[in-house]
Amino acid sequence: MDVQGGTSRNPGHPGVTPHRGDLFDAACPTRQLLDRVGTKWTTMLVLTVDQTDGELRFTELKRALTGISQKMLTQTLRSLERDGLVTRRVEPSVPPRVFYGLTARGKSLAQPLSQLREWAETHMPQVQLDQDAFDRSL
Amino acid sequence: MDVQGGTSRNPGHPGVTPHRGDLFDAACPTRQLLDRVGTKWTTMLVLTVDQTDGELRFTELKRALTGISQKMLTQTLRSLERDGLVTRRVEPSVPPRVFYGLTARGKSLAQPLSQLREWAETHMPQVQLDQDAFDRSL
Repeated sequence: MDVQGGTSRNPGHPGVTPHRGDLFDAACPTRQLLDRVGTKWTTMLVLTVDQTDGELRFTELKRALTGISQKMLTQTLRSLERDGLVTRRVEPSVPPRVFYGLTARGKSLAQPLSQLREWAETHMPQVQLDQDAFDRSL
Repeated sequence: MDVQGGTSRNPGHPGVTPHRGDLFDAACPTRQLLDRVGTKWTTMLVLTVDQTDGELRFTELKRALTGISQKMLTQTLRSLERDGLVTRRVEPSVPPRVFYGLTARGKSLAQPLSQLREWAETHMPQVQLDQDAFDRSL
């Protein structure tokens, strides 16, 4: 839990890439990465593509991620592509068709996100009852 | 993955609390719950208190969650208390002392969050290299 040196990119060792991140190091980008991947949209997107075991088109993703806006899906896909989790393949047809898949790293995220989803779905009803009781007690 | 009835609180069955949430149901609060628990601050807070196996005071939490502001820690604690994940105990001393712990439900969240943290810390260095390459390609 202590803040350790050498976990963010350049603390005293310019150009040296660390072997591992440290969530508890305020200078380490691990916490931003966690904030990006631990969202409902990332979870739904990764689990959806992982289940198909292939690629999906934008419209197919938009249908699966019920309620997501076009803009949010575009942003989510771009952020995941930038993180090396999602692949984007353009088929040079007329008009061009774009396919999204998971990289090996993206696939490796499916298991922890599946566990988090399982936890949220299991506990949601009781959480909601507790919220109601909490709000009434104010 | 299909939208199923009966997963949010009142779809056609007023007053009936479902047994389980459904992340892919746009009307189900599971996705808001996932967005609350899948953050860096919740992850750090739950894992920190879980490791102590007891209670911590506000100042101890603030020290452990490096970089968190007083306001954000207050909000995070209150949100977790409302979700029935964190306990808040006031010791009637002068001045009163406040202790924060985990409920059984909060403890049950430690395992999935620990896995997500492990994933993020393991993959962060490579993610960052891919980000650099992505940004150079624009």
